Amino acid sequence: MLKREDIIVLLSGGIDSTTLLWLSKEIFKKVYAISFDYGQKHKVELSYAKEIAKIANVEKHFIATIPHLKDLGNSALTDKNIEVPSENYTDEPPITTVPMRNLIFLSLAASYADVYGIENIGIGVHSLDSPYPDCRAEFVSSAEAAINASSIMVAKKKNRIKIFTPFLGMSKADIVKLGYSLGVPFEKTYSCYKGTEPPCGECATCRQREEALKILESR
Amino acid sequence: MLKREDIIVLLSGGIDSTTLLWLSKEIFKKVYAISFDYGQKHKVELSYAKEIAKIANVEKHFIATIPHLKDLGNSALTDKNIEVPSENYTDEPPITTVPMRNLIFLSLAASYADVYGIENIGIGVHSLDSPYPDCRAEFVSSAEAAINASSIMVAKKKNRIKIFTPFLGMSKADIVKLGYSLGVPFEKTYSCYKGTEPPCGECATCRQREEALKILESR
Repeated sequence: MLKREDIIVLLSGGIDSTTLLWLSKEIFKKVYAISFDYGQKHKVELSYAKEIAKIANVEKHFIATIPHLKDLGNSALTDKNIEVPSENYTDEPPITTVPMRNLIFLSLAASYADVYGIENIGIGVHSLDSPYPDCRAEFVSSAEAAINASSIMVAKKKNRIKIFTPFLGMSKADIVKLGYSLGVPFEKTYSCYKGTEPPCGECATCRQREEALKILESR
Repeated sequence: MLKREDIIVLLSGGIDSTTLLWLSKEIFKKVYAISFDYGQKHKVELSYAKEIAKIANVEKHFIATIPHLKDLGNSALTDKNIEVPSENYTDEPPITTVPMRNLIFLSLAASYADVYGIENIGIGVHSLDSPYPDCRAEFVSSAEAAINASSIMVAKKKNRIKIFTPFLGMSKADIVKLGYSLGVPFEKTYSCYKGTEPPCGECATCRQREEALKILESR
């Protein structure tokens, strides 16, 4: 099948980004991945991301470091004085929100896209009513505009960089269904915010993951 | 005089950002500064920025590190295989453009703004027809939209983060005139892209700086 352009996928090593990687391999020519060392307590996810990138046989897997977010703290994911909660999310941005995380991630990914001539950036944000501001459609479209206004490649070639977000209107269960049909190796993925091995099973991410994977049991 | 809100100013230690810092001290309550270690050849500018921040008596001076831009290279400012040119700029993005630099800088500054409750981010971009894509009004307004869509503070308090760019319609000579009247210590600023001490006097930045400072001789 004819494939279009190249893509760089933001890969955490969890279910969503891994499924996005598998989907991207169906659709795009060259598939790159990028993962971030941002002082997250669950830094162990990076070794899972590396293994997944290898299995997916990506063109190149970049690891970018963002040292200041740990010092800045103020998020349960990076601040040792704030515990990762087990409660469910409300409508407010949860304490696990990392300030400007996805904008920083997308900006860094875009710098690679600009140099490697990659015209698409994939991010596995999902669900219409996310409590995380930087996972919503409004955020994605404004980030795309900022990236395009900033891009050297776009200024020279007059093309556009697109942010690929096929999961924006999906639930995690929808993503698992899609991943299953794409042959995603879910057993290789990792998402626990506490960063324990085996995963804690108690944090919101662990519970969301378990809940979503239940769908496979009925098959 | 009554001052409004707080600001974080992107401070390189050059004429533009230093003048912006002095202007900000006139207008805003608390003034923070942020400088970036992004693998620039002219890293020496950071020691000038620190000294300037001290003279300005800023609330706090953050230094954020962006390690990947040096490895990524592809810019005369970060890539040891690309020489800093002495030619004048054309309309195309020059070889001194660093991929996504100002978007990355603004995203990082915004993460501090979000945590410290700072409602303004100052950046000293100037001149309507800049050859750098990420110095234009279109870039600034889209970056502002992305930052607001991403902000925890904005999501909770329903206020807005504003990007303060008073120099967008000014030339460097205009900025020098303003700086002079504000008492900016120009002799403490530094801008050479080659990073030599004393400055090379040949790179485009050195020449622009000299040209702009000439305006003071006639006083």
